[in-house]
Formats: sequence, structure tokens, C-alpha cells
Amino acid sequence: MQRGFPRAEFEGRMRRVQAMMAENDLAAILVTTHPDVYYFTGFLTRFWESPSRPWFVILPQSGEPVAVIPGIGEALMRSTWVQDIRTWAAPDLRDDGVSLLAETLREVAKGGRVGIPDGHESALRMPIADFERLKTMPDMPEIVSDAEIVRRARITKSEAEIAKIQVACDIAGRAFDRVHEIAQIGTSLETVFRHFQMLCLEEGADWVPYLAGGFGPEGYADVISPATTDPLQNGDCLMLDTGLVFDGYFCDYDRNFSLGKPPQLVADAHERLIEATAAGFEAAKPGARACDLYHAMDRVLTGGAGRNDNGRLGHGLGINLTEWPSFIAMDETVLEPGMVLTLEPGIETRNGNMLVHEEDIVITETGARYLSTPQRSEIRQI
Amino acid sequence: MQRGFPRAEFEGRMRRVQAMMAENDLAAILVTTHPDVYYFTGFLTRFWESPSRPWFVILPQSGEPVAVIPGIGEALMRSTWVQDIRTWAAPDLRDDGVSLLAETLREVAKGGRVGIPDGHESALRMPIADFERLKTMPDMPEIVSDAEIVRRARITKSEAEIAKIQVACDIAGRAFDRVHEIAQIGTSLETVFRHFQMLCLEEGADWVPYLAGGFGPEGYADVISPATTDPLQNGDCLMLDTGLVFDGYFCDYDRNFSLGKPPQLVADAHERLIEATAAGFEAAKPGARACDLYHAMDRVLTGGAGRNDNGRLGHGLGINLTEWPSFIAMDETVLEPGMVLTLEPGIETRNGNMLVHEEDIVITETGARYLSTPQRSEIRQI
Repeated sequence: MQRGFPRAEFEGRMRRVQAMMAENDLAAILVTTHPDVYYFTGFLTRFWESPSRPWFVILPQSGEPVAVIPGIGEALMRSTWVQDIRTWAAPDLRDDGVSLLAETLREVAKGGRVGIPDGHESALRMPIADFERLKTMPDMPEIVSDAEIVRRARITKSEAEIAKIQVACDIAGRAFDRVHEIAQIGTSLETVFRHFQMLCLEEGADWVPYLAGGFGPEGYADVISPATTDPLQNGDCLMLDTGLVFDGYFCDYDRNFSLGKPPQLVADAHERLIEATAAGFEAAKPGARACDLYHAMDRVLTGGAGRNDNGRLGHGLGINLTEWPSFIAMDETVLEPGMVLTLEPGIETRNGNMLVHEEDIVITETGARYLSTPQRSEIRQI
Repeated sequence: MQRGFPRAEFEGRMRRVQAMMAENDLAAILVTTHPDVYYFTGFLTRFWESPSRPWFVILPQSGEPVAVIPGIGEALMRSTWVQDIRTWAAPDLRDDGVSLLAETLREVAKGGRVGIPDGHESALRMPIADFERLKTMPDMPEIVSDAEIVRRARITKSEAEIAKIQVACDIAGRAFDRVHEIAQIGTSLETVFRHFQMLCLEEGADWVPYLAGGFGPEGYADVISPATTDPLQNGDCLMLDTGLVFDGYFCDYDRNFSLGKPPQLVADAHERLIEATAAGFEAAKPGARACDLYHAMDRVLTGGAGRNDNGRLGHGLGINLTEWPSFIAMDETVLEPGMVLTLEPGIETRNGNMLVHEEDIVITETGARYLSTPQRSEIRQI
């Protein structure tokens, strides 16, 4: 598949946010994080792993983005559609881009207000002392909330974005189909994790930022812990949940495996999870709310008793492993075509253990479509 | 190697910051990022890849850390030395931990001031609107700078931390020694990247958060771009720079390889880089300043003409891929035993191309010790 996006894709993204900026009286939006910078510029690098340098991109209400970035990123930014690139020699312990950013914001915003993403799931990726200093610099435009404009732009995906997430899902699917090659009775979870990441890479992942999992005879107590050296036993249920990346886009789904014949408890729990996933899928269509999918799945899982311990039964997905909305009772986000989502029901088994299942879907004009190949009711056996 | 740290390690870390908190009149410090939370609690998970939920740990001036975290993290936090764990059902769109955090800060700080890391290389990992709301809640303690206390604690590493970084360096060393297995004339950089990550995992990496590289007959124009599908040619110089993780600690170094006999330009540049590295190593000892190492290397590279395009000639290393200090002319940080550092000289070749070399070292009582096995003057040939 072709890497990157055509220029028209970025122009379309800019038009969408610029229309919302006009409505909200914002002269510009300032973004500072990898997902937001990649979304608007196409600037893709793993160098964000280094927290040493801040990066800034300004989206004006009219015209093209302006990059205010460390010199080390200039060559790569020049390969994107961004023309106006201003750099400083970072790190600079006295003034790490703050004056250059202030100068550029004054010029671009022309006295108008500058929005920053400040709501749920956002963060400002610059030292907070520098942000405070920025706000008090002479003639600085007022900095306010971006009124969720960046969220509203990113929450629905273009066909080109969906195609990349589809590739990521397909890669993970092939890796899940090969788990029997790397996980046997006696294999430690640490070894399974290491080899599963190798399978993901071999099947085409660019990198594997996320892998979680667990195992036990009645499921697992926890879905975020690192791997242990404990060996798999006959009858254990093993879960692997991966967020691998293709061209900057994540998949995020899991599979459960039974080492040998599953105990009835586990077989039943798995069947219920698939039933809950199907109920979520059935409810997933334009106009439905995030909470409607939550309730559709929860009815199958608990008879409608209430919330799952993991906090939610799925979420958005894209440049981030997890994005808005959340499938919880209080999230009334209305689903629209192009939203990429995970259905992630969890069920308690016994003694504080649980099983969790996850699939990736996209909302279409009339309903939804699976991006992961949906798992059947029977748990996979190794 | 044993995973994690003994309780005494965390108690020692707390004592160090608590002494500095007393000196700086701070009743508590609030940390929000993976590296800071891992450093003080031992809470290690790849779940930080999900930006959906904020996490808080409060370090009181006396006593033990208090965790204020999403319920999904409770089981894992209970496996650490932290006893006081307060959770909320996150995500909560109305109040995502802010009230619980405020209540806990009031209780812990008892009217005193709360510090947050706000200086160079720091970021606050929570929505900025929630932070503003936190600051204005009734009876909230004053939030101020942490006076670089967290930086000062983390910048020198314990023997146990150095041992983990040593393991990470050894893993990368074995992977670098096998690059001839995966990179030949005609192999694309994309394939090299994919297979090199697999080598790192096979040799023992827990995960591979960072890989960069480049290639060309006169070096490479850029050290942060993702891989392309262009194939390696005879005479090309290939560079691979990896930050792989073992038990939460990074290595960060690179190796250059010549496909066949190197052009004289490349051979000479590589020799000069090794000479510069040796000069940096020679200057690396307790009492020397970061800028002294910069000048020692720069004298070899440019005759003392000035700064490298990458912005610096090395940096600190630990739970982050890059940490303080920076080897630049303006960084006067005094080196102390236990600091883990990278020496990373770069040299221009021709037509905007360059070569970059990197080694990892630790400052000892009398000088420095290599953690990576230092490369000899001759570039490696494939």
C-alpha cells in the first residue's frame, strides 16, 4: 500500500477545522502532540519517543499550517506538504522555541484568539513553565480552548485512513492465526509476548507500540500488566491484545486462546463475549449514541446491571491506540459514518478473574463493518 | 535478571526527594507521566500508550507515595510497594479524577505547597482544562514548580538501574552483531527496520519503542525519518539507531555499516567520529560539565567551530530514551557518579549528508565506563 496521503487529504482536513474555527471565532489552533501534528501535516517519526524537544504546529483560520520545530526535524518536515517551516536549535535551555512560537502566533493570529486542545484525552506537550511564560509574553494572542475542534475533525476517518487501519487489522489477524507456533504448554508469558511481537513485525507491522495479555485457568485478573515468566499450563486461557502500527495508524484488538480443551466456565464466558460483541455491532450505526452501544453490550454481559470494571466496553481508534468516544453510560457522542471503534466487552468469571474480547469496526452510511475478522463463539484452541 | 527493584530501592528514592522537598518548602510533589510514576512506584505497563486516562502519584514530604489512578490500574498498582491507592471509574466525562486528586492533595499537603515538574523536558500528562480546574478548587494547595527535584533525583542512577541499562545495551549489541543476516545489497530500509526489531526482540528486548536510521553513499540527510522502500546499494553507509527497553530502561546507541568497501569519505568520517567519542569519554568524569564534553567532541569534529546540526552531541538516558543533561555549549550541568549518558557525535560529509555515531556510558567515581561495547575506528562492513 502507498505510504502517506495525497495533498488533497491534508487540504480537506484543514478545510474542516477552518470552518469550525470560523464558527468558534478562533484565529488559529496550536497543536503539540504526535497524533495532532501527524494528522495535519503528515510528519511521521518515532522521534516523539524523545521528550527532550517540544514541537509546534499552528493551524491558521485561512491558509496552510505553519511548523515551529526543532532544527533536527526540518528535513523530514520539508518532505511533507507544509511550506512554512520555522526552526530553532533545540534544545535551547534559555528559550526552547517559546519566543519563536510567540512571534509566529502573533503573526498568524493577528490579534485573534488561539485555541489549544484542552479537553478529555488531550495533553499539552511542552513544559508547563514554558506555557505559562508564553501566555504572558507581550502582545500574545489570548489562548483558549479549541472547542474540541481537533477532536471533532479526527473522530471520523477518511477512506484513506480507514484503509490504513484495515491493513493494521489484517496484519494482527495473521499474527493471531499463528499464535499456536509460539505458545505451548510450558512457554512463559514473557516468551509469548516477545515472539508475538516478532510475528506482528514479520506479518508487516511497522512497529508494535502496545501488547498486553494475561492467562490463567479462569481467565486473568488484569489486562495491563507486563509479562511474567510463569509458564502456560494445560487448560489455561491466554489472552493477547495488540496495538500495532501501519503507516502511523493503529489496530487494537485481542484474541483468547485455550491451551487444550477449555473449562466450561471459560467456554461459556467466551461465547457470551461474542454474543455481546454482536449486540454492540448490531447497535452500531449512524445516529446511535456511544451509550447505546454500551447498554446493548452490557445487557448481554450483566443483564443491564451496570458498568464493567475496565471502565468501558470499547472506544475510538486511529492515530492513537485509544480515542474518543468511550462506550460508557455517560458518553452520548452520536456515531457518524467514518468513525473507527473497538467493541471490547469484558466479563467476570470467578475469583476476581475475567475474560475480555475486542474487535475493530467502522461506522458506514447504513450500519457498521468489521475491520478485524470477527471471532466465532468457540474460543480458539491450541 | 530479576525484574523490578527491592523495596529499599524505592525507599531510597523517596528519601532523596523528601530531603530536597524539605529544603524547598514543598509539602508534596505531584507526578503524572510514565517515567516519573515508574521511578517512584515501580508501576510498569505499556498501557500509557493509551492517552484516554490521566494517572496521578503524590509524593509527600514524609511518608509513602499515594496513587490516585483509574480503577483499571488498581490490580497492577497493588503489586508494587504503594499501599495508599485511591481509584475512580475512568474515563469519567464529568470529573476524570480531578475531585479525587484535589481531595487527596488537600489531605497530603495540609496547606503546604505542591510541586510539579515544569522545567525542560517535562510535560504535564492531564488535560490542561482539568489542570486549570484543579488549581481553582476550594482550599486547594498552591501548585508551584518542583524546583527540578524530580530531575535531580532521576539524573543519577542507582547500581540496580545501571544494571538494567547494561542488559538493554548488551541486547542491542548482540542485535547489531547480526545485522549482516538481515541487510544485504537490494534489501529495502523498511525490511531492514522490520527485521532489526525482530533481532532485538529475539536477543531479549521487552519491546522496541525506538528505531531510526538512514543510508546512502555519503551517509544520510536525516536521522529521524521512518524507513523507505528504497533498496540498499553497494557502497552505501547504513546507520541503525535503537532505543530498546529492558524492564523499563532504555539503551540508546547506533552503529554504521558499509555495504561492501566504504568510500574514503565515509571511512574517514567514521574514524573521526570514533576519535570524537573517545575525546568525549576522556572528558567524562565527576566534576566535568556537560558543555566540557560538548567542546571535547566538537574540537575533534569541527576544530571547535560550533554546533552540530542535530542540536547536541549526546544526552542522558534511563527510563526515557533521552534525558537531561544535553551535550551543548550552554549546558553547565556538573557530571556525577551514576549519570548514564550517550556520546553522540555527528559529522557532515557532503551534499547535506552526515554520519552519526553513538555510545552509552556511565560516570563512575573516577571517570567513566562504557555500557555499550565501543566500536573501533573502522566502520563495520557487510
